[in-house]
Amino acid sequence: CPCPLPRGDCSLSRLLRRLLSARRSLEICLFAFSSPQLGRAVQLLHRRGVRVRIVTDAQYMGLQGSQIGLLRRAGIQVRHDQESGYMHHKFAIVDRRMLITGSLNWTTQAIQNNRENVLVVEDAEYVKPFLDEFERIWEEYNPINYRFF
Amino acid sequence: CPCPLPRGDCSLSRLLRRLLSARRSLEICLFAFSSPQLGRAVQLLHRRGVRVRIVTDAQYMGLQGSQIGLLRRAGIQVRHDQESGYMHHKFAIVDRRMLITGSLNWTTQAIQNNRENVLVVEDAEYVKPFLDEFERIWEEYNPINYRFF
Repeated sequence: CPCPLPRGDCSLSRLLRRLLSARRSLEICLFAFSSPQLGRAVQLLHRRGVRVRIVTDAQYMGLQGSQIGLLRRAGIQVRHDQESGYMHHKFAIVDRRMLITGSLNWTTQAIQNNRENVLVVEDAEYVKPFLDEFERIWEEYNPINYRFF
Repeated sequence: CPCPLPRGDCSLSRLLRRLLSARRSLEICLFAFSSPQLGRAVQLLHRRGVRVRIVTDAQYMGLQGSQIGLLRRAGIQVRHDQESGYMHHKFAIVDRRMLITGSLNWTTQAIQNNRENVLVVEDAEYVKPFLDEFERIWEEYNPINYRFF
């Protein structure tokens, strides 16, 4: 990265710039989401009228530092799995045309301390299967399908 | 997936097929590697004369079920980080032209129970940065750089 910021800050500012380019929709499918800066960016998009939908992992969303509760309280739709396995995806789709995916969970630990990769792809050939997976999971995790007994 | 195998087995057999297509080189950069089937495939490639190099995470490589010890004993070169953060990548590069990357760690749990994605990309535009990252990490984690005191 040729920018003058420290490694983690530079990666974060690039990711923020991509996200904040959203004008119509943002799908987020994340195992772990605890970065306050990324949480604020998502809330800002929601307030701007971007349609934000989030899918996350049931075991991780309640952990200390998770942004999920704050995002829900801000009025953003969040759905989660009901499985013993992890919802381990780490991707987002901006305006149904830009896929952001890789190894990175949206946590401060990962951004600042880990070796991670983030791919940004706009070819429909790659974006489409992720959009389809998002819509499939979104329906599957609809609360009307929850089993309580 | 239109194949008749259960979801996890089908994903595994597709991943195995990609890996076993290697003829010259295989770079693997994985946070966690515990799948016996994938371990056997990597050993097979090594015996066939494919140049296999593995980078992994120091905290995870010693956990029960890890394949890393077996792979080292088979004569495969493995290097690991010396950092407090995680080496969290999950990618492989076949013959310097096919990138396999995504959210998937090579563990039986992930293959069978999690929601995961695996992208297979052959465009040099995407493969090159991952190859560069591998070579950078490979040199950085060279044992001659270890700090013991």
